[in-house]
Amino acid sequence: MLRIIGIDPGSRFTGVGVIDTHNQKIQHVHHETVKCGDGDFPDRLKTIFVAVNELIKQYQPNEMAIETVFMAKNANAALKLGQARGAAICATVVNDIMVHEYAPKAIKQAVVGKGGADKAQVQYMVKLLLNMTEVVQNDAADGLAVAICHANNRWAQQRLVANNTSNWRKF
Amino acid sequence: MLRIIGIDPGSRFTGVGVIDTHNQKIQHVHHETVKCGDGDFPDRLKTIFVAVNELIKQYQPNEMAIETVFMAKNANAALKLGQARGAAICATVVNDIMVHEYAPKAIKQAVVGKGGADKAQVQYMVKLLLNMTEVVQNDAADGLAVAICHANNRWAQQRLVANNTSNWRKF
Repeated sequence: MLRIIGIDPGSRFTGVGVIDTHNQKIQHVHHETVKCGDGDFPDRLKTIFVAVNELIKQYQPNEMAIETVFMAKNANAALKLGQARGAAICATVVNDIMVHEYAPKAIKQAVVGKGGADKAQVQYMVKLLLNMTEVVQNDAADGLAVAICHANNRWAQQRLVANNTSNWRKF
Repeated sequence: MLRIIGIDPGSRFTGVGVIDTHNQKIQHVHHETVKCGDGDFPDRLKTIFVAVNELIKQYQPNEMAIETVFMAKNANAALKLGQARGAAICATVVNDIMVHEYAPKAIKQAVVGKGGADKAQVQYMVKLLLNMTEVVQNDAADGLAVAICHANNRWAQQRLVANNTSNWRKF
């Protein structure tokens, strides 16, 4: 069994999703949207750091997954997002948890089946894949989506290695 | 007496300077350049977070000063810098230390006397103002420079308040 925490960082809302994966199945554990408020920027970063650190202590994930960022047009937004991302990654690495990064297209491909899917499709498929009845807020759904993408990637690695050796640890 | 830690964050090198200010005088306490290496980005952020956190525990500053960033042309560089900045700010705010931000021009004005000064002039003046004999590496000099700028700003506030009330705490 592998527990994955997926994080979609943002300076206003940071989405977090926790899932378990075992025998190529996934199970929902927790999701939430950390509200960073509209106060001073250092306070918002503290909110992200403290929330992610507490969630890691509470749910004890084995690995973390986060979206890579490609932004070429708006340096100011990139700087804000970078700081939020830095806070989420710091809270992870200080707990000695490995960070895995995935491109937005890879995440959409893993969850919806096509790299050009929109947010509503991701939200719908996350709910479906995790057998959830409640509506999942956008950012939290993105957190769960990157966790699902990482689970997919782990299975793919496992299958690849299984073809060559039987020593690979099964999740 | 007020102890200030000034930080110039970067994803390869993060400059840190610690000074004391008292009676409108400044004194050098410590400076160093945190080398983040060229490994995975999350590891570099961890290096910054851990180093700043340890320096704060060791030198117990009262306040932190950091340069604001204005970048309009390169979103990728802004994202990297943002993450390094996020790591440095997180390490500060989790220790309940207030963060003060200064524009690059304000820092150069405070240290060199003109907002358009170059790095070498800042480096030279930092060494002179702090009565240092050794050569200070660029990033560490920038860390000391933003700390000096904050000390200047504190004195200015103090003078302003002193004209209206005698209740202001003297540094």
